[in-house]
Amino acid sequence: MRIRNVKNKKDIIDSCSYVIFNPEENFGKWNNVFNNSNEIEIEIGMGKGKFILEKALLNPNINYIGIEKYDSIIARAIEKIPYGIDNLKLIRMDALNIDKVFDHEVSKIYLNFSDPWPKKRHAQRRLTSSIFLDKYDKIFKDRKVIEQKTDNPILFEYSIISLNNNNYKIEDISLDLHKRDVNNVTTEYEEKFSRNGNSIYYIKAKK
Amino acid sequence: MRIRNVKNKKDIIDSCSYVIFNPEENFGKWNNVFNNSNEIEIEIGMGKGKFILEKALLNPNINYIGIEKYDSIIARAIEKIPYGIDNLKLIRMDALNIDKVFDHEVSKIYLNFSDPWPKKRHAQRRLTSSIFLDKYDKIFKDRKVIEQKTDNPILFEYSIISLNNNNYKIEDISLDLHKRDVNNVTTEYEEKFSRNGNSIYYIKAKK
Repeated sequence: MRIRNVKNKKDIIDSCSYVIFNPEENFGKWNNVFNNSNEIEIEIGMGKGKFILEKALLNPNINYIGIEKYDSIIARAIEKIPYGIDNLKLIRMDALNIDKVFDHEVSKIYLNFSDPWPKKRHAQRRLTSSIFLDKYDKIFKDRKVIEQKTDNPILFEYSIISLNNNNYKIEDISLDLHKRDVNNVTTEYEEKFSRNGNSIYYIKAKK
Repeated sequence: MRIRNVKNKKDIIDSCSYVIFNPEENFGKWNNVFNNSNEIEIEIGMGKGKFILEKALLNPNINYIGIEKYDSIIARAIEKIPYGIDNLKLIRMDALNIDKVFDHEVSKIYLNFSDPWPKKRHAQRRLTSSIFLDKYDKIFKDRKVIEQKTDNPILFEYSIISLNNNNYKIEDISLDLHKRDVNNVTTEYEEKFSRNGNSIYYIKAKK
């Protein structure tokens, strides 16, 4: 995603009740943050937040955490999220630190339109590389589910091989999700991309 | 593939030295047929034979067997194959009987543009269904490799899931093979389809 600078981003983030600062302090205690024992699902790279917000509104009995690396992007998401959604939290962090934040307490990870890192020498930076899948093993509890959507064929091919090679069971796959799935919750990027007639690739895998 | 009747198909097949009649009589003894101990690779659904012929010419130290269900199609293939290729044989048979013909002696199976059987209730007839993968387990020797090409997204999605769920390791995958691979040996159908600008899907899996 292209990042436009948001001038007062720090003020926006600091004053937002959804944002969890120093998230590693909640390591192993995330259900206390939500004050319930519901399942926790996270989106790594939440972008402007449309997807995670809609998921939270649709499923009040699941806790959602949106993770985003860039201040300017999370600030723009915050501006769109209405007050009073109890089952949604946001974290500004680099996904590389994810295993310092969660301790076997996540049920599902969503990866929507992640950076494809198209050059082969950057492949380990893709969010479905073995480096990240090993970290996810430490944050998943018994139920381990990854759902990925992308418009990038290189990332999609890579994810299929990496999930397969890391002993995930592929449960569902689509080479053109929007032709098939009417219940799909979309991201901003996805809406725009699909309107232009491009295919959205989708994979769901369990371990 | 649309099947055009070839009038003298029976004569063409009966007089062809490449065709192995009563193939089940060679169960466990296929290396005797080729009179060497080279690896044996088969194409199930060889169609008009361009692919298996070119493979045999390119790799004289590998034995190739093309399998085709329909008399009229195999007759048209025979008309195109020149005399004197020692590492090529043809069988006219239904793939359902494949485990009665080979006994742990095949190294690789090629599935090129197989019938996609697009209706869900026919999915078990697809050549990558569990029914067929179980049969392949009986014909493969230690080295087990399947390579599939198709233009059909339903078949491709199905194959990814089925190979993954049946413990194959996906080694390579492409959503657009012709954009990538210059050493690809093509089929007649593939040439025509790709000329029209369509994507060729490819997967290579090992067990």
